[in-house]
Amino acid sequence: MEREAEIIVERPSVKNAVLVTSFPGIGLVGTIASAYFINELKLNAIGILDSKLLPPIASLYEGVVLPPIRIYESEDLNLLLIHSDVPIVPQIAYGITKAIVSWAMEVKARRVYSLAGIATFEDKKRVFGAVTQKELIDEIKDHVEIFKTGTISGIAGSILNECVATKFPGIALLGETSGFNPDPRAAANIIGAMNKILGWNISVDKLIEEAEFIEAQMQKLAEQAVQEVKREEFPMYR
Amino acid sequence: MEREAEIIVERPSVKNAVLVTSFPGIGLVGTIASAYFINELKLNAIGILDSKLLPPIASLYEGVVLPPIRIYESEDLNLLLIHSDVPIVPQIAYGITKAIVSWAMEVKARRVYSLAGIATFEDKKRVFGAVTQKELIDEIKDHVEIFKTGTISGIAGSILNECVATKFPGIALLGETSGFNPDPRAAANIIGAMNKILGWNISVDKLIEEAEFIEAQMQKLAEQAVQEVKREEFPMYR
Amino acid sequence: MEREAEIIVERPSVKNAVLVTSFPGIGLVGTIASAYFINELKLNAIGILDSKLLPPIASLYEGVVLPPIRIYESEDLNLLLIHSDVPIVPQIAYGITKAIVSWAMEVKARRVYSLAGIATFEDKKRVFGAVTQKELIDEIKDHVEIFKTGTISGIAGSILNECVATKFPGIALLGETSGFNPDPRAAANIIGAMNKILGWNISVDKLIEEAEFIEAQMQKLAEQAVQEVKREEFPMYR
Amino acid sequence: MEREAEIIVERPSVKNAVLVTSFPGIGLVGTIASAYFINELKLNAIGILDSKLLPPIASLYEGVVLPPIRIYESEDLNLLLIHSDVPIVPQIAYGITKAIVSWAMEVKARRVYSLAGIATFEDKKRVFGAVTQKELIDEIKDHVEIFKTGTISGIAGSILNECVATKFPGIALLGETSGFNPDPRAAANIIGAMNKILGWNISVDKLIEEAEFIEAQMQKLAEQAVQEVKREEFPMYR
Amino acid sequence: MEREAEIIVERPSVKNAVLVTSFPGIGLVGTIASAYFINELKLNAIGILDSKLLPPIASLYEGVVLPPIRIYESEDLNLLLIHSDVPIVPQIAYGITKAIVSWAMEVKARRVYSLAGIATFEDKKRVFGAVTQKELIDEIKDHVEIFKTGTISGIAGSILNECVATKFPGIALLGETSGFNPDPRAAANIIGAMNKILGWNISVDKLIEEAEFIEAQMQKLAEQAVQEVKREEFPMYR
Repeated sequence: MEREAEIIVERPSVKNAVLVTSFPGIGLVGTIASAYFINELKLNAIGILDSKLLPPIASLYEGVVLPPIRIYESEDLNLLLIHSDVPIVPQIAYGITKAIVSWAMEVKARRVYSLAGIATFEDKKRVFGAVTQKELIDEIKDHVEIFKTGTISGIAGSILNECVATKFPGIALLGETSGFNPDPRAAANIIGAMNKILGWNISVDKLIEEAEFIEAQMQKLAEQAVQEVKREEFPMYR
Repeated sequence: MEREAEIIVERPSVKNAVLVTSFPGIGLVGTIASAYFINELKLNAIGILDSKLLPPIASLYEGVVLPPIRIYESEDLNLLLIHSDVPIVPQIAYGITKAIVSWAMEVKARRVYSLAGIATFEDKKRVFGAVTQKELIDEIKDHVEIFKTGTISGIAGSILNECVATKFPGIALLGETSGFNPDPRAAANIIGAMNKILGWNISVDKLIEEAEFIEAQMQKLAEQAVQEVKREEFPMYR
Repeated sequence: MEREAEIIVERPSVKNAVLVTSFPGIGLVGTIASAYFINELKLNAIGILDSKLLPPIASLYEGVVLPPIRIYESEDLNLLLIHSDVPIVPQIAYGITKAIVSWAMEVKARRVYSLAGIATFEDKKRVFGAVTQKELIDEIKDHVEIFKTGTISGIAGSILNECVATKFPGIALLGETSGFNPDPRAAANIIGAMNKILGWNISVDKLIEEAEFIEAQMQKLAEQAVQEVKREEFPMYR
Repeated sequence: MEREAEIIVERPSVKNAVLVTSFPGIGLVGTIASAYFINELKLNAIGILDSKLLPPIASLYEGVVLPPIRIYESEDLNLLLIHSDVPIVPQIAYGITKAIVSWAMEVKARRVYSLAGIATFEDKKRVFGAVTQKELIDEIKDHVEIFKTGTISGIAGSILNECVATKFPGIALLGETSGFNPDPRAAANIIGAMNKILGWNISVDKLIEEAEFIEAQMQKLAEQAVQEVKREEFPMYR
Repeated sequence: MEREAEIIVERPSVKNAVLVTSFPGIGLVGTIASAYFINELKLNAIGILDSKLLPPIASLYEGVVLPPIRIYESEDLNLLLIHSDVPIVPQIAYGITKAIVSWAMEVKARRVYSLAGIATFEDKKRVFGAVTQKELIDEIKDHVEIFKTGTISGIAGSILNECVATKFPGIALLGETSGFNPDPRAAANIIGAMNKILGWNISVDKLIEEAEFIEAQMQKLAEQAVQEVKREEFPMYR
């Protein structure tokens, strides 16, 4: 069998690390969180995930080409991170999942974290968590809401399934979002939950600022729309 | 040839067991029956069926990830059970079938049971049975209606065909249903038939309660519709 | 290369046999003929043709599962027969053809017969024949019309091509039919031609009865339609 | 890698032969030319090109099955010929091309000729030629128009590309045609060009007769159409 | 795994060469530039890129067949060049990219250049550059605009990604174009940038003439359109 995806990477120096994964999805929650790690914590790029199944597209950062799925490392946080610029269609999720989880085992990571968004219509900003082994519930239950019943689809679900299949400990953190816009606040909340679970101390101030800026703009747009509706209803006051 | 599906499982402790299989289909009859086994009889999860052909989706149970096709065991009933959360499209039935029947042989199961629904428009609640070897008719003929002529399509049909091809003894139990709604009564009837065929004594009271609750609701909805129709016909009495 | 189809069968006891093949097609001519062999001559089932390319569907006969393509044997007639319940789409014809013709060579059959229907609009009931080697014309030319020019498409054509490629002697018998309905008379005519070619003496009375019954019904329907048309044209006589 | 196409053939007795190839295309020019070779020169059938990619269809000639792509030989002309009854869709051209050109090398042919039509709207009847190595221009330049610029698509183009890739000498002869009807005159012109290039002396009288017959009919149809138009314009003279 | 594409080529005599690649895309910028290299610098054809994934089409040049992707060499410029007549659909970009970059390593090229167009609506004629390793920025930054942020899609992006994956030094040069017509001026600008980066001295006069001719025609068409609009607006002056 042909391997559908391959991790091409320098041997990481961290041992027993946490491996965080994120792919573009609803509200870009996971993507914003992992991009924040990369930029704020100045993670070291150590490699890429290569696959013939990915679309032929290169991103640019300061004139330098970045392949779509990249792997980073932080010795301070004992962290490995896989960040994707491209969403993964269901047909190719399996091959990419296999490459990721078998690499997690190869580098002896101690956890796989899958970061993503979850859309509800409750206008809350919770972080939901799920695990691949019952014993892991204790690690997260004081810091997030347990996501009791439901489904996680896409590559995040696929990574969790593969963790179960290989008995590798996996944790999903899902930031609640309305999902209509990129949601830095949901991303900040995920990082906040990781701070508590993993004993980290990462400031999320910049994400909160960004969220407040976006939210203020949204508020303004909403007010304008209300004014507009009023003028439509009472045209004589125009 | 690449294997399309693989059973990843602890070696079961049961010997000479009955292997029950169910996949979502009409009236969810088989699925309700196997879920009832799992929950009421507290079956032990012993593994999964993994396949690159399955959709990337993880289910959650109390915050713990469950891959879509799971394998359970009961030492009391000398039972192995394969339960799927996802329906199987025809294109992938063959690979999954091969994995199941070859595993049945490997663990020396003594029968494969395939549980499913069958839609008729007779408003009856029979259980139909079919077998893969003429000698097996005697095992079931006093407890179910023999399904004399017709076809069984989908993965249930595929499993039965593979049993014929490998001379493995297979039995299909099909719960009669109208098929428009999940049908716990048809599931209960299948379990009732298994009680008789296999000398089990599994209470189906909870399924019957559930069925009565659903049926009462349906009845109420039907009566309301009748009232509604009357009002339409004689609007002056409104 | 992965084998796309496989014959799973007990070693047949016949030697130097005639191997008859039929698949559902126009007028179901070949299928009716081969089903008649199976039921009237009480052929022994000796195996199946298995392929991942076939649709997942099981047929039932008296409550016992029958896979879609089955293989039978008659020691009296020195006959092997492959009968299919399912039509073969062009994309999978090649793999199934290869399996059949290489098995014909393996069991040292002396001829492959391909039975099918052929639609004309001449309202005749001829049997047309074609061969894969010029020398075979003599075997059939006194008993059927030679099908001089034209094409045979579908798996029947594919089997004949493979016979040419492997120099295996193949014969096609095509029962003329209007093709709009299952046509037992065309099937009876094919069996009549085989009686003459192979020195058999198979009664086709039951097929003829069936044909007369169907034809009488068709006649009645046609007469009713004529009456109906007349009433439409002269509505005052109604 | 699975071979997509295979030449199944008796070892040809000719050495250093010219290998002519034709496939159905515009005006059926190549096909008519190669069929004329086969029938008029009484070529010996020596084998077939077999491929799982071809449609399942058998042609008949005097009641004998002919697979869709056949190989012939003429010791007199020191000629090998591959004739196809079926057009080749682009997706399968590569595999068939590889089989043909590697066989040309295996049997040590000295040239591959690709015969086809070319549609222009100039109402001329030229034969255009192209080659796969500059040195070959001299072989053809006095007998055909050199096809200077343009593209040759389909399997003819694919065979020429493969000749370049393998440094095998290939020549395309393209008979000019309007392309709306089978064009025996364009086919005759191709054969005329081959006579000159290869020092052959094949009479094309029958093709010319056929062409004149078709052309006379076309002429008659055109005149009728003109009369019809006139009557429409001056209806009083009707 | 089957190789999807293969370089079939004489061993180039150049060492440590620059490998230029171009495929048809927006404004045909890369294609015009590489065709200009081929024709003006009289490059030597040394081979082709063969792939079963390419469309079956042969180009002609002076009656000689040219396969769709060709490889050239210039000892003077220490240059290798891969030029394609056919655009590459995303599904096949990966296989062709792998063949190109692994060949670049095999022949020990020192850089891979990817030439293409980039559409903006600013009516400028800049050349943008991007690199696959931060250190390469210095090579180009005085001669082109650095393409800071954005994406490069299609096979150009794919080649750049593969350079990152294999740590092979790659440079993209993108000629700014409106993209509605073949744009020789954008191609000339790319060559001008290469002159500066690589210390070459290739005259682009002919491209500029061609551009001026096209631009003059465009200008004339635009003026005619303006006149036409005026006449429409003031019909009395007609």
